[in-house]
Amino acid sequence: MSHIKKLKCLLCGKEYKAEEVRYNCPKCGDEGILEIFYDYSKIKTDFNRETLKKNQEFSMWRYLPLLPVDDPTQIGPLKVGWSPLYEVQNIRKNLGMASLWIKDDGRNPTASLKDRPSAIAVVKARELKEKIVTCASTGNAASSLAGAAASVGLKSYIFVPQTAPSAKIAQLLVFGSTVFAVRGSYDEAFDLSIKATREFGWYNRNTAFNPYMVEGKKTVALEIIEQMNFEVPDYIFVSVGDGCIISGVAKAYKDMSSLGFIDRLPKLVAVQAEGCRPIVEAINGNGTVKFVEPSTIADSIAVGIPRNRLMAVRDVRESGGFGVAVSDKEILVAIKYLGTEQGIFAEPAGSTAFAGLVKALKEGKVSKKDKIVVLVTGNGLKDVESAKKAGGEVLVIDPDLKALKEIMNH
Amino acid sequence: MSHIKKLKCLLCGKEYKAEEVRYNCPKCGDEGILEIFYDYSKIKTDFNRETLKKNQEFSMWRYLPLLPVDDPTQIGPLKVGWSPLYEVQNIRKNLGMASLWIKDDGRNPTASLKDRPSAIAVVKARELKEKIVTCASTGNAASSLAGAAASVGLKSYIFVPQTAPSAKIAQLLVFGSTVFAVRGSYDEAFDLSIKATREFGWYNRNTAFNPYMVEGKKTVALEIIEQMNFEVPDYIFVSVGDGCIISGVAKAYKDMSSLGFIDRLPKLVAVQAEGCRPIVEAINGNGTVKFVEPSTIADSIAVGIPRNRLMAVRDVRESGGFGVAVSDKEILVAIKYLGTEQGIFAEPAGSTAFAGLVKALKEGKVSKKDKIVVLVTGNGLKDVESAKKAGGEVLVIDPDLKALKEIMNH
Repeated sequence: MSHIKKLKCLLCGKEYKAEEVRYNCPKCGDEGILEIFYDYSKIKTDFNRETLKKNQEFSMWRYLPLLPVDDPTQIGPLKVGWSPLYEVQNIRKNLGMASLWIKDDGRNPTASLKDRPSAIAVVKARELKEKIVTCASTGNAASSLAGAAASVGLKSYIFVPQTAPSAKIAQLLVFGSTVFAVRGSYDEAFDLSIKATREFGWYNRNTAFNPYMVEGKKTVALEIIEQMNFEVPDYIFVSVGDGCIISGVAKAYKDMSSLGFIDRLPKLVAVQAEGCRPIVEAINGNGTVKFVEPSTIADSIAVGIPRNRLMAVRDVRESGGFGVAVSDKEILVAIKYLGTEQGIFAEPAGSTAFAGLVKALKEGKVSKKDKIVVLVTGNGLKDVESAKKAGGEVLVIDPDLKALKEIMNH
Repeated sequence: MSHIKKLKCLLCGKEYKAEEVRYNCPKCGDEGILEIFYDYSKIKTDFNRETLKKNQEFSMWRYLPLLPVDDPTQIGPLKVGWSPLYEVQNIRKNLGMASLWIKDDGRNPTASLKDRPSAIAVVKARELKEKIVTCASTGNAASSLAGAAASVGLKSYIFVPQTAPSAKIAQLLVFGSTVFAVRGSYDEAFDLSIKATREFGWYNRNTAFNPYMVEGKKTVALEIIEQMNFEVPDYIFVSVGDGCIISGVAKAYKDMSSLGFIDRLPKLVAVQAEGCRPIVEAINGNGTVKFVEPSTIADSIAVGIPRNRLMAVRDVRESGGFGVAVSDKEILVAIKYLGTEQGIFAEPAGSTAFAGLVKALKEGKVSKKDKIVVLVTGNGLKDVESAKKAGGEVLVIDPDLKALKEIMNH
């Protein structure tokens, strides 16, 4: 890939050319995640504010010069990205804040941010002439890969924990995936999918194993940068499981800074559930991630062995940000609050970042004067059971006005 | 509203000014649906191909000159419309067709086409300084109204049949609605909501009662017209419940023809479930709609008393189109087919129109050479139970390679 300079191992520092390596650093194995470095001086020549302004491609592909794509004809048909960034006036006023934006990335084809990296994975698989793609996932990466694969006629083999919400599994089946529901955790499904990849030679899209997934995820923040007219917020709140999305956000700002679009970087805040907060503990502690047994309603971030831990902890610390953990109750309250105050429907992991903002405000870790962006990473329809817990009760009535008037007078 | 010439009763022909009337024709009652007529010569002056081309508002509001809005500052923040129109190459080739497009309108804020009319309802309510909105709905109109209301701080009272899918009810509750789950059918919930409107004075968004809902729905087809670069297809397949969406599609083409954007109109095909096909029977029969007791998996179109029957039957017949009824089984097959072949996930009523196309092709009612557009009206996450019936089974395995290899060798 002529605009990619190198892939560099996060652990040993060894550098590779794109053609030399498919997944992690062959020398370091699992933790040897490869980072992508572009030839920014080359990219600059035809990617700037003027070309962006004229660009009529309102999807993640408007950032093609900054994406690891060799052959754009391999891009699938589904419309991914360019999700709305809302200035949420009702919530901003309620919280007494000066400025607040929410990026609703549940508006993607399969209703989560993961459609972005999966779109990249499908391009890479097709460039390599692979016919079968695979991944392990708590659910969203899986359904996004399954949908993207279906749209271009690739077969998908998917590994999910048996406990994944039924909506996510239903998506997989409708998209024609072969679904392995693993009797075990996401972490076990992940390991099995790697073994399967080695055994059967499928193209693997796993987070922090496939080096290009951060590049797909970064498009959410490339959009934020442009939608905010190149103004950089003080803080960006991101829910964290494997830690790959927050590194994508960091990468977007670093890329755009290298290209001269922006002149500073935002502080990143990693938000996790109290019942599964290895990254938060590492960020706020000594930087070392200790694995945990996850226990949270937010299934998308119930990750006890965060695969992108090294990069995520580094990125948040380098940015000057911090970690926050919120309870499942706070997550459910945030779902209801986002829905009732602003008409935004988030799944538990989708509302976790917002719950983190509420907590950080309360604890004085951020100020009401700060410019803040919160990422909503998945739609609430993905997990109706949790939504019901958040939502409350219906009033059952007979179909007559008398019954209604009685209820109304209570 | 200066660009609206008149509202005209479909039944008695009496004409009203916009200021004179809020809902149906006061003279004719329920069946006296009012149609909106614009001052096209006035609209023409600053709404044409050139202005559209320059318009950077990629939402339903890019068609503001053709919408019943007095005060654009009352438009809510949620991004509605400009959903993708896919040239579905995999399916087109499978079916041996010359050209086929699918409009995926499940990509709206609350995941159905109904976000379009609900966005209009909220503007009208705010223009009238109403603080409470209401509607009866099989689910999608309800959740869209609830979301739109929440986004601008209006209160919503919603009537749904107790049998509405739990995802749709969860949405309502998360959006902060007061939800009346009526022990009865959609048709009974509808009647109760009208009584409640008269009793309590809430602003009512019911289909074919509020005259502006067709205007919101038509934006889906205004987009199709522009996305097809003003080429008019031979047929548009639309699933039909109350019959309001298909009349919206007809209205879009008629409006754009009046403005000189296009020079012909498409034939419209109304698709219903076999267990609830009053409109199809009327179109293909003598034009008279007989009420039925609905029985179908496609809850969004399980409408035994279609409120927009007169307009819908007229519109399809005038267009030279026809009606098709499909079985619940065919609807489920269509869900799986759209998902597996193209990565599009539709709810049952969303896939019904496509099932109708498959049947019409088989029966020779349309040709493989015809240019055809199919509308997908809602996302499959709205009804996971049906998706599960369509999708198939997962393979449950222990987290080890040996177990996987055994399954793979079967």
